[in-house]
Amino acid sequence: MVSDIEQLETKGKAAKAASRKLAHLSAEVKNRALVDIAQSLISHQEEILAANRRDLDQASTSGMAPAMLDRLLLSPDRISAIAQDIKAVAALPDPVGEVFDMRALPNGLQVGKKTVPLGVIGTIYESRPNVTIDISVLCLKSGNAVILRGGKEAIHSNMALAKVVQDAAYHAGIPDGAVQLIDSPERILVDHMLKMNHIIDLMVPRGGAALIKFVASNAAMPVLAGGVGVCHTYIDASANLDKGVAIAYNAKVQRPTVCNALDTLLVHISIADQFLPLIASEWGKAGVEMHCDERALDILKPIPTLRPVPASTEDWGKEFLALIAAVKVVDSLDEALGHIERYGSGHSEAIVTEDYSHAMRFLNEVDAACVYANASTRFTDGGQFGLGAEVGISTQKFHARGPLGLKELTSYKWIILGSGQVRP
Amino acid sequence: MVSDIEQLETKGKAAKAASRKLAHLSAEVKNRALVDIAQSLISHQEEILAANRRDLDQASTSGMAPAMLDRLLLSPDRISAIAQDIKAVAALPDPVGEVFDMRALPNGLQVGKKTVPLGVIGTIYESRPNVTIDISVLCLKSGNAVILRGGKEAIHSNMALAKVVQDAAYHAGIPDGAVQLIDSPERILVDHMLKMNHIIDLMVPRGGAALIKFVASNAAMPVLAGGVGVCHTYIDASANLDKGVAIAYNAKVQRPTVCNALDTLLVHISIADQFLPLIASEWGKAGVEMHCDERALDILKPIPTLRPVPASTEDWGKEFLALIAAVKVVDSLDEALGHIERYGSGHSEAIVTEDYSHAMRFLNEVDAACVYANASTRFTDGGQFGLGAEVGISTQKFHARGPLGLKELTSYKWIILGSGQVRP
Repeated sequence: MVSDIEQLETKGKAAKAASRKLAHLSAEVKNRALVDIAQSLISHQEEILAANRRDLDQASTSGMAPAMLDRLLLSPDRISAIAQDIKAVAALPDPVGEVFDMRALPNGLQVGKKTVPLGVIGTIYESRPNVTIDISVLCLKSGNAVILRGGKEAIHSNMALAKVVQDAAYHAGIPDGAVQLIDSPERILVDHMLKMNHIIDLMVPRGGAALIKFVASNAAMPVLAGGVGVCHTYIDASANLDKGVAIAYNAKVQRPTVCNALDTLLVHISIADQFLPLIASEWGKAGVEMHCDERALDILKPIPTLRPVPASTEDWGKEFLALIAAVKVVDSLDEALGHIERYGSGHSEAIVTEDYSHAMRFLNEVDAACVYANASTRFTDGGQFGLGAEVGISTQKFHARGPLGLKELTSYKWIILGSGQVRP
Repeated sequence: MVSDIEQLETKGKAAKAASRKLAHLSAEVKNRALVDIAQSLISHQEEILAANRRDLDQASTSGMAPAMLDRLLLSPDRISAIAQDIKAVAALPDPVGEVFDMRALPNGLQVGKKTVPLGVIGTIYESRPNVTIDISVLCLKSGNAVILRGGKEAIHSNMALAKVVQDAAYHAGIPDGAVQLIDSPERILVDHMLKMNHIIDLMVPRGGAALIKFVASNAAMPVLAGGVGVCHTYIDASANLDKGVAIAYNAKVQRPTVCNALDTLLVHISIADQFLPLIASEWGKAGVEMHCDERALDILKPIPTLRPVPASTEDWGKEFLALIAAVKVVDSLDEALGHIERYGSGHSEAIVTEDYSHAMRFLNEVDAACVYANASTRFTDGGQFGLGAEVGISTQKFHARGPLGLKELTSYKWIILGSGQVRP
């Protein structure tokens, strides 16, 4: 145990030392390293797949569920896709070294800010081995060193992948030590890692809600994390019904297992009679189960082809991650806003309306990372918002909120260019 | 005890409720409230000064040092100055509601960000009662509710000041509960406050290094805090000597008790013979004590009017907050950079040089909140940098670094304006 912790501290110090050099490495070197990592993944495919088979064999012997086994699985196609993604990150603008807000003060001083890496990023993640590559590449591109701690079920895959990254990066000119993998499965190392705020500047957990909550509650350093996405779409009295059906359908059905999918549909009483049968018919074809409040039930029950079920109190504020939607009829925009304030998780919220003032009130008053007028909440995504790579989606307000790009892995320093100025 | 904690929770909930309304209050109402607070301080001067006299009497009875008594003291002049400062904050642009980075995506969605308040700010501070006003006003201007916990030696002053703020704000249209003062001196309330991350979105400690460290180590919520300022000025081989003397003099002497004052002077060996006697003569007139390394001592000792003393190992990396400077001769820019990396605290660092490449290397490679070429580190200040009000100076990298203005008390939300878009 002690030697595992000592080894972790040693890795941490090496990462810290590497981060100082990484901070002012040229974009050219970093991008070349990324391209080399992509190529090296392809040329070392056999070793990676062999390591992955060891993990898969152990996992299936121990009775892992098929959905989890699929998360763990690497294949030539998946490795190709990862390599393509790395090249796309290499092609993005360098987030480091951007000078902004530079201006001349009356005394002639030029004062501005310049983006710099944060330093050392720690990441704790679960079974998907692609996160090993994903986070390493985002950290290198943004000039940060990284300490990786993956799930023990993916340990052989992660070791093989990290070795490819380390070797290719080092040969391309990335300082030795920039990418560290914790290869012992001891749980105590997670606890120790979360206290290493002398080394790790930021922790980025990737995985399920329980992992993220654990990291956020126990880390001594700042954490950049998303959280539960309980997303509402409110169909206002003046909504265009076609848009409303298309948006609610897309938000629930296009990919129901993700955090920006619709959980609760709110419908204004004055159009509920028209709107609810329309969306129920479309959702019905896709197999969506509607958990309805009393008034929604009264509207939908008489239609023989629909099979709405009564909502329970736990349905409000629940993230379903499945083809289930809670449905509630409201009397006013204010009731919708109140419901979202009470049950929303601050992720993504939408209004469908043709009423200008209602759209403005919704956009102003809803306190969430992403607030939509007349569009599907499924757009909450770094790629969709044009950020290029996505680091994650934050539901916190400090540092960065909503989809996170490379820029959110940076800080800035103030640069002051003088010609001998002193303070009077 | 329990009832004090219950009362704190009640105040917290009231602040949280107020913060929701404050978030979309117009700039007009907030600015009117600020102006009314300023006027009300003047018109309630008698009560405030009477309360302050109670604190001063108790403090001097209990043997408080004169410098501390001066910090505690309010006077008609000081109250006028505070009122002027409030009006200056009222005149600043509103940091909330600024839409930025708004652009049209290929699918016609308009995506941008909008600044929003953080919510509820907590602050723990020491004896200066003006912080009660200062932080309240900055929080109200930025749309945040605030929970104040001042030092027990200033409790009567703080209660009188907070009452003026609360009454004037409420009558101007600020939601009731937006400004909360913890009026019990129980220490356990500080511990409890630091765990109230269900209520408090950000903690802003104001005071000495021990207080800030305590808050940063124990708070369950994010902390926006400065730290120790161990500031270096490096006189390069090619420095203009006049500029070097003026800058080093100003950085040490203009206000030696603050975090951006010079602590260590580094001088290149090739100009040390010329430069050190010049700065020693100027610093000598101001009473600066020089703690010199061996080579600096060798240069200065033969000059009969100077009285340099040998540096001890503790002098490197020490924040003096007094008319004392550590002085070291270095062989190269690299040695200077290495010394700063080892001993600097990431606050403010300066190079004096006429060499373009050395200036660029220093600006790029030094990892500090503010990095200067040819100017005094004393400029590290929100007012000097043109931010208007100053919330503090951060030496952390997360969220905000260096001088903090009103904008750093805000977050943002993403605003998405659609016309029926769904994700393919």
